[in-house]
Amino acid sequence: MIIAETKIRVRYAETDQMGFVYYGRYAEYYEIGRVEAMRKLGLSYKEMEEKGILMPVVEYHIEYKKPAYYDEEIILITTIKEIPKLKINFHHECYNANGELLNTGYVKLVFLRKENKKPVLAPDWFLQECKRYF
Amino acid sequence: MIIAETKIRVRYAETDQMGFVYYGRYAEYYEIGRVEAMRKLGLSYKEMEEKGILMPVVEYHIEYKKPAYYDEEIILITTIKEIPKLKINFHHECYNANGELLNTGYVKLVFLRKENKKPVLAPDWFLQECKRYF
Amino acid sequence: MIIAETKIRVRYAETDQMGFVYYGRYAEYYEIGRVEAMRKLGLSYKEMEEKGILMPVVEYHIEYKKPAYYDEEIILITTIKEIPKLKINFHHECYNANGELLNTGYVKLVFLRKENKKPVLAPDWFLQECKRYF
Amino acid sequence: MIIAETKIRVRYAETDQMGFVYYGRYAEYYEIGRVEAMRKLGLSYKEMEEKGILMPVVEYHIEYKKPAYYDEEIILITTIKEIPKLKINFHHECYNANGELLNTGYVKLVFLRKENKKPVLAPDWFLQECKRYF
Repeated sequence: MIIAETKIRVRYAETDQMGFVYYGRYAEYYEIGRVEAMRKLGLSYKEMEEKGILMPVVEYHIEYKKPAYYDEEIILITTIKEIPKLKINFHHECYNANGELLNTGYVKLVFLRKENKKPVLAPDWFLQECKRYF
Repeated sequence: MIIAETKIRVRYAETDQMGFVYYGRYAEYYEIGRVEAMRKLGLSYKEMEEKGILMPVVEYHIEYKKPAYYDEEIILITTIKEIPKLKINFHHECYNANGELLNTGYVKLVFLRKENKKPVLAPDWFLQECKRYF
Repeated sequence: MIIAETKIRVRYAETDQMGFVYYGRYAEYYEIGRVEAMRKLGLSYKEMEEKGILMPVVEYHIEYKKPAYYDEEIILITTIKEIPKLKINFHHECYNANGELLNTGYVKLVFLRKENKKPVLAPDWFLQECKRYF
Repeated sequence: MIIAETKIRVRYAETDQMGFVYYGRYAEYYEIGRVEAMRKLGLSYKEMEEKGILMPVVEYHIEYKKPAYYDEEIILITTIKEIPKLKINFHHECYNANGELLNTGYVKLVFLRKENKKPVLAPDWFLQECKRYF
């Protein structure tokens, strides 16, 4: 299992007039969680693209328990529970500084070959890095 | 059943370096769909807030079939299938101009009293408007 | 002179906890104004890119007079006052439904050849379209 | 003079299909720079609002020299050069990891009393903190 923890400071731009972080902004937070989880594997998503692999999202689910507020430093726990094949699944839990669960969700992505946009299996070099954690 | 159709032109800001609309931006599109579905009921979400009711999202799910591209005019179909009680559920389908399904999802929202942020049932005047469609 | 008028409905996502449209969001509105001004010339910015010309922004200035609010339909007046050469300058004025000036600004863009990212003069076919208005 | 340095990692969401950070996103980066410059003064912008002072932006100017790219860690230098009165002016310089200047700009904000949205002078307790640096 791969677990990464990321701290994110809420920007003013991310609040809405309800005074909460806008519900659509968590997609960006989750993206940061994914990128940092991959970096922990010794991989940057940037390199993935440079090596010709795109990773578009095919499914995204989120349940909101409590709002996040401006200037809070929230903690995002990102987990990869299974070795990826055609898809890679990231699980996310977002907490505030008091340890309260703010939201939980998952994001499923596929691997596409950049030049023809066709789905492929997770590349071998990527799986090698993953397998060290399972 | 309440069905609303909304057209949305993709902004440059909404694309990412993959050349697709960023996966997190559909939350904004779905929000537009909800607002226009409510407007069709003779209600503006703005008025809801002015009458002291906030409607935060508690659950959001989306499955991406095909990407949307810059400058496309996409068609969003928003449906309310049941009369709301503690929650209101919106179903969304997003198509491009060729009639291809781009993504499908749902959003669940609750009703909160603005002054104390406590959950309440859908207000009566709101239900009256809804019931005309069921 | 080329003048285009565009109506934009303020999205909830665009507000911040001050209850106003976030100051950074007007860049997206101005982008819409530019795109619609170009469409009026019979040109889409999308085609520009397809023809190998990118148009990145090199300067952006905005003065805020009054805030815009959620769900307002604001009117954006976009003007091209001079025939473009190395740069194209767009002037923007943003009004609310009561005709009050909300903000005013300008955006300067250059023309880049896509394959080498080098600056070029405005393409001839683009200038031909422009000249019909001057 | 007050100078603060902030590092910001570029998010995928912040890129556009040109492959650069979208020109409108720097408003968020500059906002982070302002907030961190104020935090250095021992003040949080959050507290400002809690003490009844809003600080909307009245003018924003930016000149783009070079693009920023996905996953780069950019360095933002934020400077307050004069003691604020009716307005507070922030100057910003944004660099990449190679020390190349990406963009430069300024943002002017006013102080509003929250309850009536009327402009006021910079509050005394705020000026006291500022004066230690001049």
